[in-house]
Amino acid sequence: MTTAPATQGSYVALCGGIGGAKLALGLMHALPPENLTIVVNTGDDFEHLGLHVSPDIDTVLYTLAGLANTELGWGLAGETWSFMAAVEKLGGPAWFRLGDRDLASHVTRTQMLRQGATLSTITDHLRRRLGIAPRIVPMSDAPVRTVVDTENGRLPFQTYFVGRRCEPVIRSIAFDGAASATPAPDAAAALAASDLAGIIVCPSNPWLSIDPMLAIPGLRQALMQRRAPLVAVSPLVGGAAVKGPTAKIMRELGLSLDQRAIIEHYRGLLDGVMLDIVDGRQAAGLGIATEVTNTVMRSLDDRIDLARAALRFCERLRAARV
Amino acid sequence: MTTAPATQGSYVALCGGIGGAKLALGLMHALPPENLTIVVNTGDDFEHLGLHVSPDIDTVLYTLAGLANTELGWGLAGETWSFMAAVEKLGGPAWFRLGDRDLASHVTRTQMLRQGATLSTITDHLRRRLGIAPRIVPMSDAPVRTVVDTENGRLPFQTYFVGRRCEPVIRSIAFDGAASATPAPDAAAALAASDLAGIIVCPSNPWLSIDPMLAIPGLRQALMQRRAPLVAVSPLVGGAAVKGPTAKIMRELGLSLDQRAIIEHYRGLLDGVMLDIVDGRQAAGLGIATEVTNTVMRSLDDRIDLARAALRFCERLRAARV
Repeated sequence: MTTAPATQGSYVALCGGIGGAKLALGLMHALPPENLTIVVNTGDDFEHLGLHVSPDIDTVLYTLAGLANTELGWGLAGETWSFMAAVEKLGGPAWFRLGDRDLASHVTRTQMLRQGATLSTITDHLRRRLGIAPRIVPMSDAPVRTVVDTENGRLPFQTYFVGRRCEPVIRSIAFDGAASATPAPDAAAALAASDLAGIIVCPSNPWLSIDPMLAIPGLRQALMQRRAPLVAVSPLVGGAAVKGPTAKIMRELGLSLDQRAIIEHYRGLLDGVMLDIVDGRQAAGLGIATEVTNTVMRSLDDRIDLARAALRFCERLRAARV
Repeated sequence: MTTAPATQGSYVALCGGIGGAKLALGLMHALPPENLTIVVNTGDDFEHLGLHVSPDIDTVLYTLAGLANTELGWGLAGETWSFMAAVEKLGGPAWFRLGDRDLASHVTRTQMLRQGATLSTITDHLRRRLGIAPRIVPMSDAPVRTVVDTENGRLPFQTYFVGRRCEPVIRSIAFDGAASATPAPDAAAALAASDLAGIIVCPSNPWLSIDPMLAIPGLRQALMQRRAPLVAVSPLVGGAAVKGPTAKIMRELGLSLDQRAIIEHYRGLLDGVMLDIVDGRQAAGLGIATEVTNTVMRSLDDRIDLARAALRFCERLRAARV
C-alpha cells in the first residue's frame, strides 16, 4: 500500500457492479467520506417476483459494508437459500436466485418505493443502516432499463445476463427510459460541486454498466461540462477482460480488444485512461494522458492502491491544466 | 380411530387458524376431497413489509400439506430466519416474524394479487402446488380487516394479536370492509351445492375467526338459508379455551365462560353443538342438539375421530329432519 496523497476536493466515481465496486471500496478507504460520491448504474434493475431488484446498487452496498459474498462473487456472505427452495416448491421461477438475507434489501426497497420514496432516498437509507460512510447514489430515480438486442431477439438485461448467461450474440444495446430520465439530484449535485477534483470511471463494463449513465442526457451533459478531469480505469488487461462479458460483447459489436476501442468509446468525455502494467507499452501511442499501474484488484490493498493512483492521476491532470 | 361413516354429500368447514386447521386436517382424512370445501377467515390478513400476509390461509395450507411447524405452533417446519435478521439490520420491524420459507407464500401471493389474480385463485394455486386435495377458499376475495377496539384504542388485528400479545382489554371487535364484501365464489357455490350434507364450524375463536365470515352479508345469508345442518365444535373445554385468547376475550366482553355463551353467539345459525367429554353433563340443559366426544385434538387420530364425529352428527341431524 502506498501513502495516501493529500487529497483536496471531492470526487465522483461512476460504477457498475462487481468490478466497479472493488474500486469504489478502494476509494472509500482513500478519501474522507464527505469527498466521495459513488454514482451507480441502475440499468440492470428489474422487477422479479414483484420485488424491485437493484443488482449494482446492492453489490456496491454489500461490498462497501464488508458483507459481500466473495465466494459467489455476488450477494451476501453467509447467505441462506430457504426462500428460493420454497419458491420453487410453489412453482415460481428459479433462474434468478434471491438469497434470504438479500431479500431484505429487495423487500425494503420495494415497500419504500410503493410508499413513494425515491430510489435515492432508499439507497441512502440502506447505506446508513449498513454503516457505509460515503454517499451512494443511483444514476437516476427514474426507471432506465437496459435491453439487449441479440440474434435471439430483444432481451431484458437480466434475462440476457443471468437467465441466458450472456450467451446470445449481441447486436446492439438500448436503455429504455434513459432519454426522458434525469440524473438523481445527488448525482447532479456532486458533478456540479465547486470543489469537484475528479471523476473516476470504474473498470466496469463500458457498454453495459457505464453507457446507461451516458444515455441519460442530463448526466452526459454534466460530464461534458465537467470542471474536473475525468479518468477511466480500463476494464481490459492484456487484451482480455478481467471478468464478465466485456470481451465477448466487444467482439460481437465488431470492436478490437484493445485500449483504443475503450478510449474511442469514451471519446469527448475522457481526459485520461489508466492501464494495467501489462499494457504499459501501448500507453505512448494512445493520444491521451495515461497512468500505468496495477489495475487487477486481488486484495484490499490493491483496491486502495488503484484508488490512490486514480486520485493522483486526477491531481496530475488538474496540475497540467493550470 | 373409529371406522369412517359412509359419507354421502358434500361438507363445508368454516375455519380460522391453528385450532380450526387441526379439524380441517381431520376432515381431509375423513372425506373424499371432492366432498370438502374449507372456507377460511381472512380478517387477520394484513400488509406487512409491503407483502400481503394471510395468516389463517397459510396455517390451513401448511397444516394440510404436512408442513406446519408443530414446535412453534405457526409457520413452516424447518424454518430459517435469515431474512428477519437482515430486515432488523436494515432498521425494519421485527415484531411480526416472517420465516424465509414462509416468505415464498407472501411474495407469491403479493405478486399474483398485483397482477390482478383473486385471493381465491392464488389460494387454489398454492393449495395445488403443495399437493393438498380438498378445496381451500378464502371467505371473500374482497379485503375484510378485523379491528379490535380496546382500552388502549383501536388496533389492527395483528397489532393486537401479535404486536401486543392480546394484552389490551377488548371493548368490541369490528370487521372493516365486511358490509360491502361478497363471499368468494367457491365459498358461495359450496354452500349452495345441492348435495350439501353439513356445515362444520371448527373450534376456532368465534369472535375473532368465525365472526369475520358472519359479518359478510352474503355469507351469513347463505348460512341462514342452509339446506344442511350446521354444527359447531365448541372451543371451550371445561370452562376454558384449549388455546389462544378466547377465554380472555369472552371475559372482557362480559360473557360467562360456558357453552351457553357459545350457543347464544351462534343463535339462529346453529343446529347442534359438539362438546368435549368433560362438559358432557351440561349437554342436556342446553336446548339444542349436542354431540359429546373428545374435542381436544392431540394426535392425528384425534383430529380424524373428531372429524368423523362431526360428520356423523350432521348425519344424525339430517335424519332427524326427515
